[in-house]
Amino acid sequence: MVNVTNAGPGRPRLTKQRRPGPTATAQILDAAAELFTTQGFSSTSTRKIADAVGVRQASLYHHFATKDDILVALLEGTVTTALAVADQLVNRPEPAAVRLYALLNFDAGQLLSGRWNLGALYLLPELRTERYAPFRDERQKLRDRYAQLARLVLDDLGIVDDARCGLPFRLVETVINERSDSEAGTGDSAPIGAATIAEAGLRVLGWTDLDAVRASAATLVLQENNGGR
Amino acid sequence: MVNVTNAGPGRPRLTKQRRPGPTATAQILDAAAELFTTQGFSSTSTRKIADAVGVRQASLYHHFATKDDILVALLEGTVTTALAVADQLVNRPEPAAVRLYALLNFDAGQLLSGRWNLGALYLLPELRTERYAPFRDERQKLRDRYAQLARLVLDDLGIVDDARCGLPFRLVETVINERSDSEAGTGDSAPIGAATIAEAGLRVLGWTDLDAVRASAATLVLQENNGGR
Repeated sequence: MVNVTNAGPGRPRLTKQRRPGPTATAQILDAAAELFTTQGFSSTSTRKIADAVGVRQASLYHHFATKDDILVALLEGTVTTALAVADQLVNRPEPAAVRLYALLNFDAGQLLSGRWNLGALYLLPELRTERYAPFRDERQKLRDRYAQLARLVLDDLGIVDDARCGLPFRLVETVINERSDSEAGTGDSAPIGAATIAEAGLRVLGWTDLDAVRASAATLVLQENNGGR
Repeated sequence: MVNVTNAGPGRPRLTKQRRPGPTATAQILDAAAELFTTQGFSSTSTRKIADAVGVRQASLYHHFATKDDILVALLEGTVTTALAVADQLVNRPEPAAVRLYALLNFDAGQLLSGRWNLGALYLLPELRTERYAPFRDERQKLRDRYAQLARLVLDDLGIVDDARCGLPFRLVETVINERSDSEAGTGDSAPIGAATIAEAGLRVLGWTDLDAVRASAATLVLQENNGGR
């Protein structure tokens, strides 16, 4: 595909677009996501990212001041939509089990379908520094919503067990490991899908009647904003 | 503590031991584990590791030829003992649910109690290269043992669902994320412990009678070799 891109401030030029994405920012994010997840964050320079997009390094800085800013944008993209969905769900009238199932199914689906397995970057030590605090806060909010819905499910079952409340969120993030192993060529013949995760997220709480929940969750219409975990 | 260490081939010297460990190799592994998990693998040079141990870089190469060799040794240490326990368990006469519970409980306990959260390095892109193939094979073997026991539990329940077989292994590795979040200061008031993981690993398969399993698993005596996941 040949189109006019803005290779630098005020310097439009005719070039072959190397990365998918409607804007230069989207193309930079896609290139960075591939390099961070396949070469490592610390081994990836902004120069390498610029080369992969086909722009000069100076143009890249026009969109992102630092490499950390690129990673922050990518990581926030993995949480924003799931958090918006979770915010809707905590305020809906359906039984908690149906709402938690819907959240797990949506979130696992997103983590599985993103073009790059960005969740594999969640454990980077760099993420503990101050500049990643806004991302950590967003992910913590999502984790809180999961725990809130899980506690309601346990209430419905008459069970008091705080430690179990954290399990559904942990389960949803296991699709990151599943993808990583699968991409490394050590995948299973029967990979774990979003529905399996959603059911497991209820089972770990002690909920066993999955048929009714699955049917109700399928009729639940969620408002999705842009982005993608 | 002051003792005589071997700071280089044939060069014993009196020095203050900086890292815990009975041998120079153990001290190098401890220092590397801390640096890899807190500063990142790619940001850690063998020079930094040598400095943290208090030996010269040349001495370090006497124990490990490359930085990758150090990481391989650390990663293998996270799987070896669990695999030995799993190998015993697949051949024992107890019900599969009891054996799977025992494996989950042992393995989660190990992952939680190691001095450094080495599982956080499992998703490094570096691990996909050829030199990490032996580690990947060992971890895959452990994953197979989990799936084998899970399939036996499902058989006992009369359930056919291949996708569920992978869930117990995924659950045990979530303690890595739990530790990581807890170390980053975003921990829960009720962190997920080994027993919670062990019970959840049976619940995801559809097993609900946990009391009997917990009691039987507690009486099961396992042979542990050295090492530690």
